[in-house]
Amino acid sequence: MSASVNRQILLIEKPAGKLGPEHFKLTEAALPEPKEGEALLRVRYISLDAANRAWMHGATYRSAVEANTVMAGGAIAEVMASNAPGLAAGDLVFGDTGWQEYASVPAKHLTKMPKLEPMTYLLSIYGIAGLTAYFGLLEIGKPKQGETVVVSAAAGSVGSIVGQIAKIWGCHVVGVAGGKDKCHWLRSELGFDATVDYKDGAVFKALRAAAPRGIDVYFDNVGGDILEACLPLMNNYGRIACCGAISQYDGVPSAHGPRGVPGLIVVKRLVMQGFIVMDFMAQRDRALTELQAWTSSGKIKVQEDVIDGLENTPKALIGLLAGENRGKRMIRV
Amino acid sequence: MSASVNRQILLIEKPAGKLGPEHFKLTEAALPEPKEGEALLRVRYISLDAANRAWMHGATYRSAVEANTVMAGGAIAEVMASNAPGLAAGDLVFGDTGWQEYASVPAKHLTKMPKLEPMTYLLSIYGIAGLTAYFGLLEIGKPKQGETVVVSAAAGSVGSIVGQIAKIWGCHVVGVAGGKDKCHWLRSELGFDATVDYKDGAVFKALRAAAPRGIDVYFDNVGGDILEACLPLMNNYGRIACCGAISQYDGVPSAHGPRGVPGLIVVKRLVMQGFIVMDFMAQRDRALTELQAWTSSGKIKVQEDVIDGLENTPKALIGLLAGENRGKRMIRV
Repeated sequence: MSASVNRQILLIEKPAGKLGPEHFKLTEAALPEPKEGEALLRVRYISLDAANRAWMHGATYRSAVEANTVMAGGAIAEVMASNAPGLAAGDLVFGDTGWQEYASVPAKHLTKMPKLEPMTYLLSIYGIAGLTAYFGLLEIGKPKQGETVVVSAAAGSVGSIVGQIAKIWGCHVVGVAGGKDKCHWLRSELGFDATVDYKDGAVFKALRAAAPRGIDVYFDNVGGDILEACLPLMNNYGRIACCGAISQYDGVPSAHGPRGVPGLIVVKRLVMQGFIVMDFMAQRDRALTELQAWTSSGKIKVQEDVIDGLENTPKALIGLLAGENRGKRMIRV
Repeated sequence: MSASVNRQILLIEKPAGKLGPEHFKLTEAALPEPKEGEALLRVRYISLDAANRAWMHGATYRSAVEANTVMAGGAIAEVMASNAPGLAAGDLVFGDTGWQEYASVPAKHLTKMPKLEPMTYLLSIYGIAGLTAYFGLLEIGKPKQGETVVVSAAAGSVGSIVGQIAKIWGCHVVGVAGGKDKCHWLRSELGFDATVDYKDGAVFKALRAAAPRGIDVYFDNVGGDILEACLPLMNNYGRIACCGAISQYDGVPSAHGPRGVPGLIVVKRLVMQGFIVMDFMAQRDRALTELQAWTSSGKIKVQEDVIDGLENTPKALIGLLAGENRGKRMIRV
């Protein structure tokens, strides 16, 4: 409370190609005064997500981030002072605080969070990552027992939970991830049935071997070549849950879309469906109840990758886009 | 009945590039004897469909057509003699007779058709074309009153019916077709609200002008560039009914898929869903009842393009792939 300086990270330039540290700047500002309807927040944990990079391209499901403003990002924060009914000092909230130590945010853009330990779970298994995995797999992918589920970016925050929920559902689960170590971890620690290391080349052949009965549900975090490789392996009436397109976010977007669209979509009667987790928030309580039960019984192992220091946020996002992390990456501010 | 010669058209070679008359040969064979469980058929009208060309690429929802066999194709035919229970001389059936005057076909692969006039309606509005339009638009596209529906190959057998059903549903209907004449016909005769002539270039701009409130349902018969142009214009929660990919059937398949897949699918929460009309056959009676009511009340105008003579079948298919036809093209044998 006695702090008078607010450290912030600005996006000083929107990247034309790959994102680098030169696109950011650490700066200092005065503590923001909460206006009517706002709360002054102390940011505790900043969520790092591939979507942060996508926001730099232009308006998506949210407005684009602009150069020379505090970089946008979701975070868990503590209310320091409130000018809004329903929020009081000491409350814990989730919201888009941006990459800074303090923020004044309208209460209507904040979601009150329960106090539980570890607090990081509010960003991983009980946060956007866990809910995205839960709703995307179950409501969009609609897996049935015995079906084959493939998930890309399988070692990431969402993918690692998707695969574990699919195992709870009794599916044959294949994870696509980069590198032998991640693949080994997915199989030995998280219970995936098979993995495909996309850095090893020959993704299509490896996928075909890992999914010998074809693919019923493909949970797509990456788009591009891996989506293209999955299409010919989809079974009739298969479902592709389109969660993200990480392969397209950092650098120049791909010159082409996946071959097989829409030819294979027609012939195999596939459903490709995009979703944003916010659309499911009315069902949030049900999801949290199930996720909590699975976590406390050990059916889901929560993997987090917590990095200290606001000043490390740019580097942490750049690393995430390069696939450094296992599970949910976040910054402890 | 007294004929002893069966004129047939063989596919003598699978085309590597564009389909031409050189890939077919007219030949003569003896009348086929119906085996146990088969009926001997006199073919009356052969259906011409862009899908005929797709079958030459390999197995789709049916096995691939092979070189040096009678070219596959659906037809309305009359039973001459039957070795199968449930079928008798004089019955009218629909089935894959192939491009020939007579065929012996297992009864289980035939659908008995009502006797109505004109008989050609069994291939157009009450046949695969009408049912494809009906189920694809209503079950996959799920249009609501006031929404914007775009249909490609709009002057074709399926597209021309899709647009008219969408008008009955109270939608703003945009047809994409090739050439000023077809576009004028769609607006003045079939009641489309707007059209886009893809031969005129600048499809994206023209689509944007024709669909000023964005696209809620895109009924896709063509894939490729027109699908790509529609994606950025789709409204959130829009539906893309994937019916065919005509643009990919004749000649070398496109080197790339549509850009925007899956990025725009995610951000706009779109559903892309492929379908084959056969999947809806349990609901056929309901569809026919509605289609008959709309046709007899004049809400749907049936457009057919009937060409005489088995020998003209190759030319008629080649012309269809080039976009010559308006409405349902067929051969009177």
